[in-house]
Amino acid sequence: MKNLIRPSVAAMHAYVPGEQPDGADVLKLNTNENPYPPSPKVFEALGRVDADILRKYPHPSAGKLRSALAELHGVRPEQVFVGNGSDEVLALCTRAFCEPGGRVGQMAPSYSLYPVLCEIAGLACVEFPLEADFSWRVPDRLDVSLFFLTRPNAPTGLCVPLDDVRAAANRCDGVLLVDEAYADFAEDDAVGLLNECPNLMVSRSFSKSHGLAGIRMGYVLGSPELVGALDKIKDSYNTNVLSQRMALAAIEDVSWMRSNVTAVRGTRHATAKKLTERGYEVLPSQTNFLFAKVPEGVDAAELHAKLRARNVYLRHFPGPRTGPYLRITVGTDAQMERFFRVLDQA
Amino acid sequence: MKNLIRPSVAAMHAYVPGEQPDGADVLKLNTNENPYPPSPKVFEALGRVDADILRKYPHPSAGKLRSALAELHGVRPEQVFVGNGSDEVLALCTRAFCEPGGRVGQMAPSYSLYPVLCEIAGLACVEFPLEADFSWRVPDRLDVSLFFLTRPNAPTGLCVPLDDVRAAANRCDGVLLVDEAYADFAEDDAVGLLNECPNLMVSRSFSKSHGLAGIRMGYVLGSPELVGALDKIKDSYNTNVLSQRMALAAIEDVSWMRSNVTAVRGTRHATAKKLTERGYEVLPSQTNFLFAKVPEGVDAAELHAKLRARNVYLRHFPGPRTGPYLRITVGTDAQMERFFRVLDQA
Repeated sequence: MKNLIRPSVAAMHAYVPGEQPDGADVLKLNTNENPYPPSPKVFEALGRVDADILRKYPHPSAGKLRSALAELHGVRPEQVFVGNGSDEVLALCTRAFCEPGGRVGQMAPSYSLYPVLCEIAGLACVEFPLEADFSWRVPDRLDVSLFFLTRPNAPTGLCVPLDDVRAAANRCDGVLLVDEAYADFAEDDAVGLLNECPNLMVSRSFSKSHGLAGIRMGYVLGSPELVGALDKIKDSYNTNVLSQRMALAAIEDVSWMRSNVTAVRGTRHATAKKLTERGYEVLPSQTNFLFAKVPEGVDAAELHAKLRARNVYLRHFPGPRTGPYLRITVGTDAQMERFFRVLDQA
Repeated sequence: MKNLIRPSVAAMHAYVPGEQPDGADVLKLNTNENPYPPSPKVFEALGRVDADILRKYPHPSAGKLRSALAELHGVRPEQVFVGNGSDEVLALCTRAFCEPGGRVGQMAPSYSLYPVLCEIAGLACVEFPLEADFSWRVPDRLDVSLFFLTRPNAPTGLCVPLDDVRAAANRCDGVLLVDEAYADFAEDDAVGLLNECPNLMVSRSFSKSHGLAGIRMGYVLGSPELVGALDKIKDSYNTNVLSQRMALAAIEDVSWMRSNVTAVRGTRHATAKKLTERGYEVLPSQTNFLFAKVPEGVDAAELHAKLRARNVYLRHFPGPRTGPYLRITVGTDAQMERFFRVLDQA
């Protein structure tokens, strides 16, 4: 049977997303979801869905949503591409900008999906390692067709300075994709660099800050030429009508998102403080999660398993660099109190 | 700028889907949507959506929906792959089963998306032409990695006999994908061949018979090995939580779909009769559309434009074989009355 399947596909391992456990009693701090609900306007949009909307094909390129996003970010609609989650955007970039056999770059450690996308597309994934403190020194040259610059980075939560993003774009042979899935939680973003760096793109997600991971909606900003290339190779109707409408409603109520982000940042600060008091080394996060090194003598994998057995789900990435760390999504204050109660008994 | 984009992508033309005109007065008979609303259970499912569902990532592989589809078709859940519309399924097949530079086959004329998918994936699209009457004689050998056998075919509406599907599977070097987007409107389907043909897959869509084109939901049935290959290369969360739930609700009320299909088939019959009375040559359709050759002396492209100017949208495919035909989606009886009123005045 194997000869029906491409050998590279038959040999590869799929990306393993964080667990989505069922059960109301689970404290889910493992996949960086927002603990707060999406805007009430999202539910109003849902309430307006009728048979005609469902019956008919959606707008193929999500026209209204593109226009709203363009306005939000001060760019033109033809600079916006809307995808079925930012994961689709990232995958399309590997297909639009890289010849099979070509090279893609990423910081390491970073989002563990990138190497999988490269494997799927038959590309070499070249790692540009972070320093010992997880900061990034921009290499003299990024000789790749596509570089994933994750800002803020996951799982570290750290943010490459904007001057370094500019330098990286200038030194990159190909497209520099700034993956800003967590940018709403950060202090600044790279959108302002779009005008000066023609090879730069900035991707965003509704999953984290907008509390809409369930609807699969992401987008990317860039030059009309780069956006046009993605448009050519996307599935004709890559985003569905409900997600388009709910995302549009979320954008129209961006203050709702911002006030939730403020709450998360407050809880992030308090949580980091409490972890530090308990002997954890916590990286200064600009995201909705904390990357924390467990105290001397504690085994992070064991602690992860122990908490999991008590229905508290965190994320642990095995490996020499990330192994001593736990990634903890920032929940509500009440959720973090429960987290510490369980942690202190573990 | 062009050197940032793959030359093949820079050179290609995107698939052009049928128009999605706005305006309440438009009679949309151009993209084969269902004129009837989806099941009330779909709306009930929508009404049960709460913040927690939206906040969290969906089940990555749409587990409950897979199980329900498996039960519906009498296969095992690991024989079902769920995609973001069957278009995603088709695109994934080109990436899972074909080496770059390889060969994909299709009947011609057929669904105009296939050559675009091949171009995106860097594959040769080999056309196996239909006979003068649009029937298909199975070639002695299908020397391709993937063959799209569209059944019923679009835009003709005709159905290759099941014995020929079996023969095609046996003569195909690679995967034979039976694209059954319209199968619910046909007299039989190829699902029963799955057990005897290990290289066969059968794809389906919620867009047509279930009246859910807006939610982007499709699936494919096949061996666990072939399905497993698609699972490896899909986007991690390729279908969103709302579409999963609405599709599940539609499956749980399959009698709703069947009664709408019966209505469409009745209207199809009456419409074909009326077209024939007006001098059209109508192919015997097993779908929710009719492919009709315009009478002697009528220019199909002109007629298409004339009807469009009067807000009646049909589909016209230019070209030597399809040029004299119009493809007409079957609407409600009232819609078809309006269609004939406008046609008779054109």
